[in-house]
Amino acid sequence: MRQWSAARLLPILSWLPGYRREDAAADAVAAVIVAVMAIPQSLAYAMLAGLPPQAGLYASILPLIAYALFGSSSVLSVGPVAVISLLTASAVGAVADPGSPEYLTATLVLAAAVGAVLLLMGALRLGWVANYLSYPVLSGFISASAILIASSQLTHVLGVPVRGDGLVELLGNALRQLPQAHWPTVLLAVAAIVSLAAAHRYGKTLLQALGLRAGLAGLLSSASSVVVVLLAIAIVAAADLAEAGVAIVGSIPRALPPLTMPVLEPALWRELLPVAVMIALIGFVQSISMAQMLAAKRRERVEANRELLGLGAANLAAAISGGLPVTGGVARSVVGFAIGARTPMAGVFSAVGVALVVLYLTPLFHYLPRAVLAAIIIVAVLPLVDLRAIRRTFIYSKADFMAMAFTIAMVLLAGVEIGVMIGVGLSIGQFLWKTSHPHVAVVGLVPGTEHFRNVRRHTVITSPHVLSVRIDESLYFANARHLADVIYDEAVQQPTVRHVVLMCTGINHIDASALESLDELVLRLADAGVKLHLAEVKGPVMDRLERSEFPSRLTGRVFLTQYQALTELDASVVAQAKAAS
Amino acid sequence: MRQWSAARLLPILSWLPGYRREDAAADAVAAVIVAVMAIPQSLAYAMLAGLPPQAGLYASILPLIAYALFGSSSVLSVGPVAVISLLTASAVGAVADPGSPEYLTATLVLAAAVGAVLLLMGALRLGWVANYLSYPVLSGFISASAILIASSQLTHVLGVPVRGDGLVELLGNALRQLPQAHWPTVLLAVAAIVSLAAAHRYGKTLLQALGLRAGLAGLLSSASSVVVVLLAIAIVAAADLAEAGVAIVGSIPRALPPLTMPVLEPALWRELLPVAVMIALIGFVQSISMAQMLAAKRRERVEANRELLGLGAANLAAAISGGLPVTGGVARSVVGFAIGARTPMAGVFSAVGVALVVLYLTPLFHYLPRAVLAAIIIVAVLPLVDLRAIRRTFIYSKADFMAMAFTIAMVLLAGVEIGVMIGVGLSIGQFLWKTSHPHVAVVGLVPGTEHFRNVRRHTVITSPHVLSVRIDESLYFANARHLADVIYDEAVQQPTVRHVVLMCTGINHIDASALESLDELVLRLADAGVKLHLAEVKGPVMDRLERSEFPSRLTGRVFLTQYQALTELDASVVAQAKAAS
Repeated sequence: MRQWSAARLLPILSWLPGYRREDAAADAVAAVIVAVMAIPQSLAYAMLAGLPPQAGLYASILPLIAYALFGSSSVLSVGPVAVISLLTASAVGAVADPGSPEYLTATLVLAAAVGAVLLLMGALRLGWVANYLSYPVLSGFISASAILIASSQLTHVLGVPVRGDGLVELLGNALRQLPQAHWPTVLLAVAAIVSLAAAHRYGKTLLQALGLRAGLAGLLSSASSVVVVLLAIAIVAAADLAEAGVAIVGSIPRALPPLTMPVLEPALWRELLPVAVMIALIGFVQSISMAQMLAAKRRERVEANRELLGLGAANLAAAISGGLPVTGGVARSVVGFAIGARTPMAGVFSAVGVALVVLYLTPLFHYLPRAVLAAIIIVAVLPLVDLRAIRRTFIYSKADFMAMAFTIAMVLLAGVEIGVMIGVGLSIGQFLWKTSHPHVAVVGLVPGTEHFRNVRRHTVITSPHVLSVRIDESLYFANARHLADVIYDEAVQQPTVRHVVLMCTGINHIDASALESLDELVLRLADAGVKLHLAEVKGPVMDRLERSEFPSRLTGRVFLTQYQALTELDASVVAQAKAAS
Repeated sequence: MRQWSAARLLPILSWLPGYRREDAAADAVAAVIVAVMAIPQSLAYAMLAGLPPQAGLYASILPLIAYALFGSSSVLSVGPVAVISLLTASAVGAVADPGSPEYLTATLVLAAAVGAVLLLMGALRLGWVANYLSYPVLSGFISASAILIASSQLTHVLGVPVRGDGLVELLGNALRQLPQAHWPTVLLAVAAIVSLAAAHRYGKTLLQALGLRAGLAGLLSSASSVVVVLLAIAIVAAADLAEAGVAIVGSIPRALPPLTMPVLEPALWRELLPVAVMIALIGFVQSISMAQMLAAKRRERVEANRELLGLGAANLAAAISGGLPVTGGVARSVVGFAIGARTPMAGVFSAVGVALVVLYLTPLFHYLPRAVLAAIIIVAVLPLVDLRAIRRTFIYSKADFMAMAFTIAMVLLAGVEIGVMIGVGLSIGQFLWKTSHPHVAVVGLVPGTEHFRNVRRHTVITSPHVLSVRIDESLYFANARHLADVIYDEAVQQPTVRHVVLMCTGINHIDASALESLDELVLRLADAGVKLHLAEVKGPVMDRLERSEFPSRLTGRVFLTQYQALTELDASVVAQAKAAS
């Protein structure tokens, strides 16, 4: 255990004293770009979560400052994220109607619960729990979520309400509603999608062709959504499209977020807690992998448990300032890193930037068409559908592919929470099944050596009286009984066998259930006239065995090596092996 | 896969053709003793399950015949069992009032569900699932159940109704009711408990002292409950104690069990299914361990999946003939085995015996006091409280002890179903935690050899440029990220390190999540200027890796041995090691 200290509790104390003017300059430049990029995203993800647009902006102010105080990564930029907003919409939509005051209240409770879960995990050093979101499950979940998120924007793209439980119904209703679509809205959305996708793919090349430096070209193309947003606002305002029925963002309050405490309604908390745990885990895994990848480029490291505290503080900040659950965003973090953000202070500067926008520029967004926000969401999430990962996993491992395919199917058909839970259950089940059916080999002596190898793969010498068995797994409750049966069956199949020697090289641990099975095996073999011996038992395993009555019950002996066991139990075979070599 | 055949579906076809007169004689003698012993137990366990006494007798007729047809063990004797009856009472009591017709209906549905679960497990060869009832959980569950069962008999021992949710309330109420106790009943119960316990402990010795042969003495003492039952009936009838308020069994219908189909009420089935799964698993584990231990004494083996079919058929038979869930009983099986039952025909003979009793002798049980049945239950279950197992587990492993203690506490305080579920969850959680934090060692070259050992335990030679790391566990989703972090941290802690070589001797499997983590690790190390190499990768693991893009992304190489890796990456250290030896 490392000691507690103020700098450990508040990482900011470890870098702020050495903060210099150059750091501030680098952080400020990065902060401006990140803020410009984050604002349209924040509005869009608030819409995705079923919230008024300002919630997204609020979630990009105080949470960033909280993360700067408690987080440790200099590269992570927190804020609303598409997948987390989808989970939020799904969870809060189950307890309140979108647009109602209860919906806002429940969202803040959810953010508070996510924060509490993250802080608790950090305090108890439970970061490892997130590892149970296996790669197939996480990757499958994200691919399926991206499809769900894109589909959920059909309402805004078509300009008519499209509802439906599950993907199939939603797409069916969208097709049925197509004749009623509001064509000016569709046109805006398609134009925005095409220009955003084009800017995303060709923007940098184009700008470079126009003579800009690669760095600057990359920067400007990553801010392309702002250009599209401003263009769309200008068009809608000039052509009076809002009057013509194009849905717009409307007025956003010109004020800093109101500070409120999340309500303490036990029933509501209990209902939202499972999803809060899921959001906490998914948000944490995504943030930490990205932070680690980016930190490695600076030969730095990210401490998972401290990152939990930073993300937890950020979500609590979102909960008290009218936001929504947040985590580290991939796009904004990568951009901030590329531009050269040096410390968490970049987050503080970004927060100030967003706050200034909230105070002075919200009238600008009045005419922003919702169809364009939907376009931003669609273009952001579709690259998350990772067909190559699906193909790669299919080639590598059918079991992992099965977990991935089930997760995708369940997320699409039965909902995100159930899909992830089934996926995690399947991953754990597969691992338990695998370890409960370990590899067991009958081994024999390789002539001319003291080595023992599998009789099925090598030409080895075996004794008719001594059965040597190697087990390639620790012994625990799920495999102990099965292994005891396998050994017993092997022993009684050959009526000449009088000794069984277990080669324990692969056994790192024997639990109480396995000890009981070994005890029973000794008795069962004794009843069948066979003695059980052990060989090559690892030190810690033997130490523990000696605390039990097992050594005194063992009918045979504990040998240092398998070779020594065979020499003592059937010298003639060993002599024969020497002669043969 | 073995082939299907009639003899495989109906094991009786494999032994009946060779059945001889001597077998029949041996089976018949064993059957009579087992039936005599089973009848009081059957009445008692029906009472424990909250059912009329005949249910226990019915459960000892048709199920035995069904097991003889489909089961394979020559030693297992099925029937009502204390622990299963407790689970039945707890499950059925939650959906119907004891004594009501609905209670009987629900019991039959439960038996049918248990039978269906067992048959399904047998058909799908899912016998291994029962291994997840780890020894600490099963042992803790049985100890705690024994306490609960004994306490549940206080009503019959005191002669006044004692109710209560959970053990604490029950015992409190019993104390409070003590002044109202019906003293003739208490006296009968105490006398029965003392004489049964004494017969159990000293009966055999006493009878031997009176000149009987050891075998016969053992037999007679194991039938001691019948003597106590007959004595009690005589006393109650003679002294007219029923008039004085001693609760008696009363009239039992003089007829073979009515054959009925269990009702098909989906809601009821759904409600009882979780407990049915638990009864199936617990009953199966207990039967199979006992059957294996007994079979070993004859150098026979028991096939788990066939045993599932036998027990499943027995429970379906119980369900259609007014019984209750059954499984292999320890006492009756051991006695039958000791007397020399040779084939499942012994079960058929026992069934005939019980059927004759039902037809002709039930009036005999009219005056049997319920207090004596309670005494039989208490004396039967109290030895199941296994304090030595608790102590042994505490000494052997704190983790296993924790699982056991939690199971006991939760069974006693929150109920049997919740207790077992928490115990199983805890066992699996502990195993996952253990494998997700595997042993990792930085290794060095042992001078004068080509062996690599842990730098912390051995005097070895290491290179400042090459870090050798050994991992003692397969790589899978729960440990891959953690291991990648450990390796990365070790590598960047020493600024001179340029190569990391993973010694893969202990890795039996790499799943898709671990592959992803390795991919990331390669990139992170590359960003830090370090190359990743593998050494001593097992054949099947390498085969699988070659299906992925990992080998082409690997910055380093795959070496045959760790020694070869060090020789090629830092020849000077190897030379130095040679010089030092």
